[in-house]
Amino acid sequence: MRAKASQQTKASAAADEGAPGGGIDYGPLDRRLGYVLRRAQMAVFRDFFSAFEAFDIRPAQYSILTVIECNPGLKQSEVSEALGIQRTNFVAMVDELQRRGLVRRDPAPNDRRSYALVLTEAGRRLMGELHEVAERHEQRIADAIGAETHRRMFATLWKIARIGEGGER
Amino acid sequence: MRAKASQQTKASAAADEGAPGGGIDYGPLDRRLGYVLRRAQMAVFRDFFSAFEAFDIRPAQYSILTVIECNPGLKQSEVSEALGIQRTNFVAMVDELQRRGLVRRDPAPNDRRSYALVLTEAGRRLMGELHEVAERHEQRIADAIGAETHRRMFATLWKIARIGEGGER
Repeated sequence: MRAKASQQTKASAAADEGAPGGGIDYGPLDRRLGYVLRRAQMAVFRDFFSAFEAFDIRPAQYSILTVIECNPGLKQSEVSEALGIQRTNFVAMVDELQRRGLVRRDPAPNDRRSYALVLTEAGRRLMGELHEVAERHEQRIADAIGAETHRRMFATLWKIARIGEGGER
Repeated sequence: MRAKASQQTKASAAADEGAPGGGIDYGPLDRRLGYVLRRAQMAVFRDFFSAFEAFDIRPAQYSILTVIECNPGLKQSEVSEALGIQRTNFVAMVDELQRRGLVRRDPAPNDRRSYALVLTEAGRRLMGELHEVAERHEQRIADAIGAETHRRMFATLWKIARIGEGGER
């Protein structure tokens, strides 16, 4: 525990550089990467929510539609695995996108138990708009933290995203 | 749009450095910071979930207990704001922690409509164990991505966490 104590101090000092005060003592939370990642993700999602409010599109729906758009005909299980979304949640989300006329479930070739996902014409048209909104959202994030910092984050975040995964994502 | 196209290419190249392939085309998702933050956060939480499984403690519960431990007597609204948790969700989470005998709601001095949160003796004892488990979890994350990368992430993530917030957290 002695070696760890000095490490804690270093991590804590690093956290203090960026962490705002506000009179609350966050104790060891300030040196928990999961907590700070969650706060950062929430802030970016807040901007996303307000940008996509008029379209009634949430981040997970945008991700699903994008993967279907870029890979038409993938099976449901392939899309949910690619995005790391649990099967049950995923099926409910696709149900909603289908009900809204954006996604179609076709019979999967050579596999009677599963469906191949494709965008409808309305889905394809909507994606054209969504990508433009998403690009402006991304630009706001880059402007807020600096283009260079924004650019540099991706490689490190993917490294973190692969922890415990043996290479898949 | 012409200036943005070149920026997209740069961001995409940065994403490719770290993003694994797997035969799926992620299209513009690879250059959406929110998406990659979410994947990174999910990976760190997966390690947290498995580390805290025996205690039946989720990340948000650990955060709440830590803030109450470090700031005994804070009002419910102060703790939920400090952690960015919506009021309704927060009350339900405190209900559960109270039912498990870890948290107590005392009458708030000078405010009959609200409660001051404190840990029970059992809650304080549990926190001693949880912080040790959390420290080992953090060490695994630091080992996986390198101590220096781990240390450097905090300032940038706090900068992102403050987007659109005018300084609070």
